Amino acid sequence: MLGDLAGVGRSPTGGYRRFAWTDEDLTLREWFRGAAEATGLAVTEDRVGNQWAWWGDPDASLAAGRPGVVAGSHLDSVPGGGNFDGPLGVVSALRAVEALRRDGFVPARAIGVANLVDEEGARFGVACTGSRVLTGAMPRDRALALADGDGVTLAEALTRAGRDPDGFDRDDAALARVGTFVELHIEQGRWLVDEGSPVAVASSIWPHGRWRFDFAGEANHAGTTRLADRDDPALKLAALILKAREVATGLGCVATVGKVRMIPNGVNAIPSAATGWLDGRGADEEAVRRLVPSIEDALGVRAVEESFTATTLFDPALAAGLAELLGGAPVIGTGAGHDAGVLAAHGIRSAMLFVRNPTGVSHSPEEHAEPADCEAGAAALTTVLRSLAAT
Amino acid sequence: MLGDLAGVGRSPTGGYRRFAWTDEDLTLREWFRGAAEATGLAVTEDRVGNQWAWWGDPDASLAAGRPGVVAGSHLDSVPGGGNFDGPLGVVSALRAVEALRRDGFVPARAIGVANLVDEEGARFGVACTGSRVLTGAMPRDRALALADGDGVTLAEALTRAGRDPDGFDRDDAALARVGTFVELHIEQGRWLVDEGSPVAVASSIWPHGRWRFDFAGEANHAGTTRLADRDDPALKLAALILKAREVATGLGCVATVGKVRMIPNGVNAIPSAATGWLDGRGADEEAVRRLVPSIEDALGVRAVEESFTATTLFDPALAAGLAELLGGAPVIGTGAGHDAGVLAAHGIRSAMLFVRNPTGVSHSPEEHAEPADCEAGAAALTTVLRSLAAT
Repeated sequence: MLGDLAGVGRSPTGGYRRFAWTDEDLTLREWFRGAAEATGLAVTEDRVGNQWAWWGDPDASLAAGRPGVVAGSHLDSVPGGGNFDGPLGVVSALRAVEALRRDGFVPARAIGVANLVDEEGARFGVACTGSRVLTGAMPRDRALALADGDGVTLAEALTRAGRDPDGFDRDDAALARVGTFVELHIEQGRWLVDEGSPVAVASSIWPHGRWRFDFAGEANHAGTTRLADRDDPALKLAALILKAREVATGLGCVATVGKVRMIPNGVNAIPSAATGWLDGRGADEEAVRRLVPSIEDALGVRAVEESFTATTLFDPALAAGLAELLGGAPVIGTGAGHDAGVLAAHGIRSAMLFVRNPTGVSHSPEEHAEPADCEAGAAALTTVLRSLAAT
Repeated sequence: MLGDLAGVGRSPTGGYRRFAWTDEDLTLREWFRGAAEATGLAVTEDRVGNQWAWWGDPDASLAAGRPGVVAGSHLDSVPGGGNFDGPLGVVSALRAVEALRRDGFVPARAIGVANLVDEEGARFGVACTGSRVLTGAMPRDRALALADGDGVTLAEALTRAGRDPDGFDRDDAALARVGTFVELHIEQGRWLVDEGSPVAVASSIWPHGRWRFDFAGEANHAGTTRLADRDDPALKLAALILKAREVATGLGCVATVGKVRMIPNGVNAIPSAATGWLDGRGADEEAVRRLVPSIEDALGVRAVEESFTATTLFDPALAAGLAELLGGAPVIGTGAGHDAGVLAAHGIRSAMLFVRNPTGVSHSPEEHAEPADCEAGAAALTTVLRSLAAT
């Protein structure tokens, strides 16, 4: 099934570029509809544009006091993204349902497969828009006003894709159908390589903050200004990049300055201003909270906190139960955000499964999963759905 | 006269934005034509689009073995540029001619005022295009293919401005009319503040190199990749920025990393690549040549040399004569490139005058010159033209 998608959104520079509500995304949505219907599922779309493919009537199931069990992930990608981040979870869910139907399994509640829209946030700059607006974690007006690099707003993109932005809103009725949500995802790290296991269960999503460091300087000519007369903010930005690594190493968390801006960014101009964005995460929330104050004190600067998300804990009993069900799979935390985390934070019983990635690399064409590990992941998801839908 | 220009190309963020062949530039060119004609000069345009306003017939002057004396500079600006960089030289030249005519001076050779096009290179990325193509230092085809930030080529920009790109070429006939060229310019530094003098004569333009440092890394997820597993090129870029300052300090020259690029430049992405551009200059050519090898050795990297221009010496006898004529004005080098340097390198007898800038700042709205110093500059240029055109 991953092979069916291999031609969609291939980037000339390697990897995939599948941004939400672009032609590539619409092609993938059509593929999802077709593949789900071929598996015998009825495809619906909520007010945000997330796709839900159901086996059984989710409303009848809900009315009977047995809200559905849903497995799913996303089909969009970052620029230069890999084959597996997102699609592996959707494809594995379809494969799991196919296996259950082939085996003659009779679910006691509706089973769904979801394709959640715009998880990466690569087009409009905010991750998990599909689940955040669905749950009301992000106001609809704020989401609709987001603009892509060409200045196209999400509202305009929806209109171009034939959707009515007026209807774009949180959707409690769609959410109520989801009793339990399970997201299978390629691992974005090398923990499973070290563990020697093909599949893990998630315990939590690490706390995660983003901060902006603005450094003012004095614009001047690069050729005529004596070094002693300069106030060059590039030097301060450089110090931030190095200090962030040093402090994170000491605190046992991770810190990244992956985005910078220099003004005017000209070869012959001492910049008037420089900005660095710091992404910090870690297993220990206290350590993550100490990261930026430590850097601020060392450099004598102040940062602006753009966001901070505390630890998202997945249902511990569910995680422990799934790990046991899967023969003692490891239970690990992750530094990446996911739709399952947004749903968990909203109070929906949620879990994640990770599939081993031998390179440990993600958001890159280097991302990989061996076919045998993909099969192990789909089999694990089949086992999980069978168990969760048995009663 | 500077007041006439004050409204053209004002940037909402401060300073001026007057890029070559834009509406702002065309307005300035029309202003130049009108002001020159009001001063009694006949305006011509060479094949590159440089404007030459003549008092007397330059061809008759040339035929008589007395090629013209020209004063001039440019009217375009960098983004966020100041009031004086360029226009001060053009306006002072018009003022000087006006003064000579008012005094009843009878020149022994033609006197010209020039507005040279696209000195800053802010639109198409290459400085001094007007003088470089004029002299053949830059091939016409390379210049015509240069593109601005919107992908508009110089050839297209010329067509939009009503010029025929086919005719755009070096122009030996126009150059032959220029026996001596004098460019007056705002000082881009604080030497004259320290000297306590309003005007200086240029000795040379410092040697000047531009190098590109490309750092490869491994794209990966900022949240899930352990610090020990990372190959983050932002750290190498940061080390370059700090090392360049340190090495330049030791060598007594100046070095600037004013332009950087990170790919993909995303908050949650460890970059796959980072690039820093180094601009290096100094009075001592040997020191400037040692700058990059010293950085390369310290960091264990290799840079790509994008350009290197050796010291441009202005005619020493002319510089000494003008300094004496101006009552012992200081003779100083400069780290900035100018059209006068391009013409000097082509073998045209050239000189520059600098006017004191109390802030020392240029390429910024902070650039300044006191009215009395502007008057002193125009008076000095009047004295110089009177002397050079007397025989």
